[in-house]
Amino acid sequence: MTFDGPVAILAGSGQLPVQLVAHLKRTGQDHRVLAFRGFAASELRQHADATVDLLDLKSIMQALENWSPAAVTLVGAVSRPGFSALLGAYSLLRNRQEVKDVIARGDDQVLRGAVMLLEERGHRVIGAHELAPDLVAPLTLRGRIYPSEDDWQAIRVGLDVLGALSAFDIGQATVIAGQRVLAIEGPEGTDRMLRRVGRQRQTWLGLRRRREGGVVVKAAKHGQDLRVDMPAVGPRTVTEAARAGLSGLALGAGSTLVLEQDETIRTADRLGLFLTVVDLPWMEAKRA
Amino acid sequence: MTFDGPVAILAGSGQLPVQLVAHLKRTGQDHRVLAFRGFAASELRQHADATVDLLDLKSIMQALENWSPAAVTLVGAVSRPGFSALLGAYSLLRNRQEVKDVIARGDDQVLRGAVMLLEERGHRVIGAHELAPDLVAPLTLRGRIYPSEDDWQAIRVGLDVLGALSAFDIGQATVIAGQRVLAIEGPEGTDRMLRRVGRQRQTWLGLRRRREGGVVVKAAKHGQDLRVDMPAVGPRTVTEAARAGLSGLALGAGSTLVLEQDETIRTADRLGLFLTVVDLPWMEAKRA
Repeated sequence: MTFDGPVAILAGSGQLPVQLVAHLKRTGQDHRVLAFRGFAASELRQHADATVDLLDLKSIMQALENWSPAAVTLVGAVSRPGFSALLGAYSLLRNRQEVKDVIARGDDQVLRGAVMLLEERGHRVIGAHELAPDLVAPLTLRGRIYPSEDDWQAIRVGLDVLGALSAFDIGQATVIAGQRVLAIEGPEGTDRMLRRVGRQRQTWLGLRRRREGGVVVKAAKHGQDLRVDMPAVGPRTVTEAARAGLSGLALGAGSTLVLEQDETIRTADRLGLFLTVVDLPWMEAKRA
Repeated sequence: MTFDGPVAILAGSGQLPVQLVAHLKRTGQDHRVLAFRGFAASELRQHADATVDLLDLKSIMQALENWSPAAVTLVGAVSRPGFSALLGAYSLLRNRQEVKDVIARGDDQVLRGAVMLLEERGHRVIGAHELAPDLVAPLTLRGRIYPSEDDWQAIRVGLDVLGALSAFDIGQATVIAGQRVLAIEGPEGTDRMLRRVGRQRQTWLGLRRRREGGVVVKAAKHGQDLRVDMPAVGPRTVTEAARAGLSGLALGAGSTLVLEQDETIRTADRLGLFLTVVDLPWMEAKRA
C-alpha cells in the first residue's frame, strides 16, 4: 500500500519498527517516526522526527497534528505501564470509569483504546502488515528441515489450544510436546515462555539444551485486531526455541510477521529446527 | 470410607501424603506406606513400611502383593522423570509403542497409565479425597475477607479459561486480573506460576509485592480423574498469591484439596487475601 502523504510510525521497542522504517525508505514511502523514550531502539531514536514519553498524550497528538499523516501505525512492544500512570494520562481525555474498564480488560483492549482515540481524532490507523506486506509470513516460507509426523500432530494440538483460548486476552503462542501442553504464552512474551520451557526440562532431566522435541506454535487469535498486536518472530525466537530443546516453529499464515526472514530461516537451518507456516482454520473462515 | 483391610499409600512429595497418613492414624484405618525415595517427605520416610525408587516397578508390585491392600492411593507429586527412564521401566511390563504413546500424551495420561497397570493387577485404586473427605474444600470454607465485585468477575473469567482448556493436558490454575489472563499453569505447578506473575508485575511497575489485585482460580478440569491428580493448596499457596500481589484465591468445590485448612485460612486472613470456594459448572453437570 502506498500513500500520497506521509505515514506516521509510533515506534516501541524491538526490531519491527526498525525494519518497517527500512522498508519505507527502500520503497520511497514518505514517513515520520515518533519514538517512545525508553522503548524505541537507539538506531531508530537517532533518526526519529520526535521522541516522546509513552504517556505524554498531549505531545503525541501535537506531533500528529503537525504532520497530518495519511495513516498512523503503532508498532513494537511497549511494556504495560503501571495502572495508575495509564489511568492518569488517559483520563485527561476521556471518562475515567470507561478508561478503567478498558484497562481492566487487558492489553488488547488498551491498545484498541489507543486506536479508538486516534480514530476519533480523524486519523486512519493501519497495521504494519499493510505498510510492509513483505514482512508477513507467506505459506511458502520454510527452512530446509521439514516437520515429522509427530511434529504435525503437535502443531494441530497447538492450533486447537490457541483456538480454544481466542476468546480470552492471553498470548498468541503455545509449546506442545506430543499432545502435552508445556506452556501457554502470557504477557511475558514468546522468548520468556521458551526460556521457561527450557528451565522446566532442565529440572526433569538434569540436562540442559538437550533436544527433546516439541514445537512452538505462534499465530494471531481469532478476531485479533492485527493493527495493534500482530505476532512477530525473528532469529532470536529460533535461537530460544533451540535452547528449549524444541524441534521447530509453526507460524500462522498471513497473520505473523517474520523479521529478517533470510536470517531467521538460516538460523533455523543451522540449529536443525524446522520452520513452517500453517494455514489457520479461523483465518480461512474469515476469508471465505 | 473405611476398609476392612489395610489401604496402601504410594507417597510422593509434599504435605498431602503426610496429612493423609495422619488422617488415617486418627480415624484408626489400617494402612501401609510406600515412600518414593527422593520424593516423600522425611517425616513420612521415617515411618514408611517400604521405601523404593519411583521407577522400580518390580519392588512396588512386590510390596503391594505382600500387603494385599483393600485399596491403593497414589498421592503427592512426583516430578516427571526423563522420558527414556520411564520408557525403560514401563517397557518391562507392556508394549513399548503403547507406553511411548501414553507418555507423549502427558502427565495425566502417564498417571492414568499407572492406575491402569495397578487395576490390571487386581488392585482397587482410589483417590485421597475418598480416604479423607475432610481434606476436600467444602463450599462453606472461607476466610474473613470476601471477594469484591471485580474479584467475582475475574473468578468467572478464570473458570471460563479452565473450562475452555479442559480438553487439553495443561494446568489446573490460572491467574486473572480484571478480564486479563496473567498466567495459565503449565507443568511448573501453581507456586511457580504465581512467582512468575510476581516477576511480571515487578517489571511493569518497578515495584515488588505491591497489591495490584487479581485472583488465582484453581479447580479440577472437566473429566479429570481425581484419583491421580487432584488439585491441592495449602498455606504456601496463599503466601505465594500474596507475594504476586493478588487479592485472593478461588477453589473449585468438591474437587480441590486444602491442606492444613485452619492454617491456610489463618494465613489468608493475616495477609489480607480472600479465600473462597466456588461451584464448578462442569461438576454440577456431572452430579445432575
